Amino acid sequence: MADDANPTTADDQSTAGSYVTPGTEFTRDARYIATRITADGRDGYPVEAGRYRLVVSRACPWANRAIIVRRLLGLEDAISMGVAGPTHDARSWTFDLDPDGVDPVLGIPRLQDAFFARFPDYERGITVPAFVDETTGQVVTNDYAQMTLDMSTEWTAHHREGAPDLYPEALRAEIDEVALAVFKDVNNGVYRCGFAGSQEAYDKAYDRLFARLDWLSERLSTQRYLVGDTITEADVRLFTTLVRFDAVYHGHFKCNRSKLTEMPVLWDYARDLFQTPGFGDTIDFEHIKQHYYVVHTDINPTSIVPKGPDLSGWLEPHDRAALGGRPFGDGTAPGPVRPGEEVDPQHSAQAMRG
Amino acid sequence: MADDANPTTADDQSTAGSYVTPGTEFTRDARYIATRITADGRDGYPVEAGRYRLVVSRACPWANRAIIVRRLLGLEDAISMGVAGPTHDARSWTFDLDPDGVDPVLGIPRLQDAFFARFPDYERGITVPAFVDETTGQVVTNDYAQMTLDMSTEWTAHHREGAPDLYPEALRAEIDEVALAVFKDVNNGVYRCGFAGSQEAYDKAYDRLFARLDWLSERLSTQRYLVGDTITEADVRLFTTLVRFDAVYHGHFKCNRSKLTEMPVLWDYARDLFQTPGFGDTIDFEHIKQHYYVVHTDINPTSIVPKGPDLSGWLEPHDRAALGGRPFGDGTAPGPVRPGEEVDPQHSAQAMRG
Repeated sequence: MADDANPTTADDQSTAGSYVTPGTEFTRDARYIATRITADGRDGYPVEAGRYRLVVSRACPWANRAIIVRRLLGLEDAISMGVAGPTHDARSWTFDLDPDGVDPVLGIPRLQDAFFARFPDYERGITVPAFVDETTGQVVTNDYAQMTLDMSTEWTAHHREGAPDLYPEALRAEIDEVALAVFKDVNNGVYRCGFAGSQEAYDKAYDRLFARLDWLSERLSTQRYLVGDTITEADVRLFTTLVRFDAVYHGHFKCNRSKLTEMPVLWDYARDLFQTPGFGDTIDFEHIKQHYYVVHTDINPTSIVPKGPDLSGWLEPHDRAALGGRPFGDGTAPGPVRPGEEVDPQHSAQAMRG
Repeated sequence: MADDANPTTADDQSTAGSYVTPGTEFTRDARYIATRITADGRDGYPVEAGRYRLVVSRACPWANRAIIVRRLLGLEDAISMGVAGPTHDARSWTFDLDPDGVDPVLGIPRLQDAFFARFPDYERGITVPAFVDETTGQVVTNDYAQMTLDMSTEWTAHHREGAPDLYPEALRAEIDEVALAVFKDVNNGVYRCGFAGSQEAYDKAYDRLFARLDWLSERLSTQRYLVGDTITEADVRLFTTLVRFDAVYHGHFKCNRSKLTEMPVLWDYARDLFQTPGFGDTIDFEHIKQHYYVVHTDINPTSIVPKGPDLSGWLEPHDRAALGGRPFGDGTAPGPVRPGEEVDPQHSAQAMRG
């Protein structure tokens, strides 16, 4: 998965002030804190229930991966979660959703405080998702690509009964390969469209994006999930981009050959996942729209947030079960969302009718 | 039709430098040159074949009305047409598509030259469509709303054999009423969305736009055309906005509850007209996209033009004939487009597949 961790600043992840560099392609800053939380604690941070806080924004697709994986694996008791607001300022994601604007566990108003606690001169992007050590208030890692894999493979002692294997040993090579293509052309591809600094760079990113989506449609027309016959890390990674496609990427990032709703296989596939416990119940469409349209003032100077699209279609039936597949393999679906972590019902697909 | 002529600067019509005024609603500058070309010549400009040149841009929906009406009525022999390029500069629409950048009949590089020839201190927007007197090089009028009505009612002596009556006496009150509602909420409504200076102004314009589109869908579900059972001025006016909806208004102006292709009645209605001689054959999708995305730098600072959407669906069959109606009433369809006035095939719906 090394290549997935080799891109550049995620702009709904970090807090750089401007996103478009005229005349250039968009390049993601790939420098993350490489420290890992592992079962053997070799980096000084052993797996330990109750010690780490996962800081996310529901707006961010990279953080969304971690929210989904934590929930699918049932790690809520072992790892607490702090949720930053959707519209960070120029310096940092902030805990403006919390009482008095302070994270109730970490006691800080800004995520950057945890970064500076460990690295006083930290100069890179203050990004989500990030693991923070509650005992010291210091950030451990913001390496989003490694983070979800480690939740699958290092945190096994704390998985719930019936947790699925999202990164099965026998399929890792194929998962890595698919996820890398999805990362380059889709996850990061939409950003390459939206933050292109030239017509040429945009055109190239657009062609790659839709060629890859066509390839994915073809692949998913005969199999329910991307790799094997169960949900894996590869599906989680594709889902977090697809679920944002019509809400923000189609218009704001000019990914507009067609809407997701106009790509029948992908739309069915995405709805299937959305309606699976652990996916749709993590999605806050209002946070997603607020974030992209308000923060990226160099491509939306007015910061006006569109009322559309009508997103209620996410709840419509799909036919994917006919393809077979066992969503959770030998495991089971996760239970209800942990009390206090529910998405505001006003921000759900049902409520967002434009 | 007085109220239709009582709005404000059309920003794909005129050449103001900025379109959004923060904190305000968008207000169209309604001050046009009210001179009329009439059969009796009471304003000093009598109807006369070969004397006037209609200057348009194919990008502009207000000019598009005049292009369509001229063609439906067969006025090509009586009134010549000059076509400005899609991306005017800060001062004026320009004849950059013509050899040496000069209109071959008027001999001027910029439309403003014709305005200044008549009014040396002209300070309002330099707008299309405009009628220019070829004998003096002076602009006669840019009052787009009156212009098409006058082509229907004052230029009758030069109409082709079989020209339809687009503004039939008995239906004028109803045409005026429908057209006024369409103007306020749809024709100008999309601009009120796109150039809103506040979230509140945008939200209000969006709600009015889609409420009106729902009302139009309802009306057009049982009748083929907006008023009576034939094509009228009211259809021309609605068509020029609908044909631009997915190409520019949906994304660029945030009119995104749904695409036109997702509003079944309106999509069928618009395709019916598009496939009727005189409508679709006037549409240059490339000019439309270039204009909106390149010129409005205060809402699209990068000036990058989206590759999408796939517009080839405009040629798909529709079921509207089942509703009855006689497109041209007792008249006939216009013949082929005049040689030299054809839209570049590369800019047609067929070619624009994203």
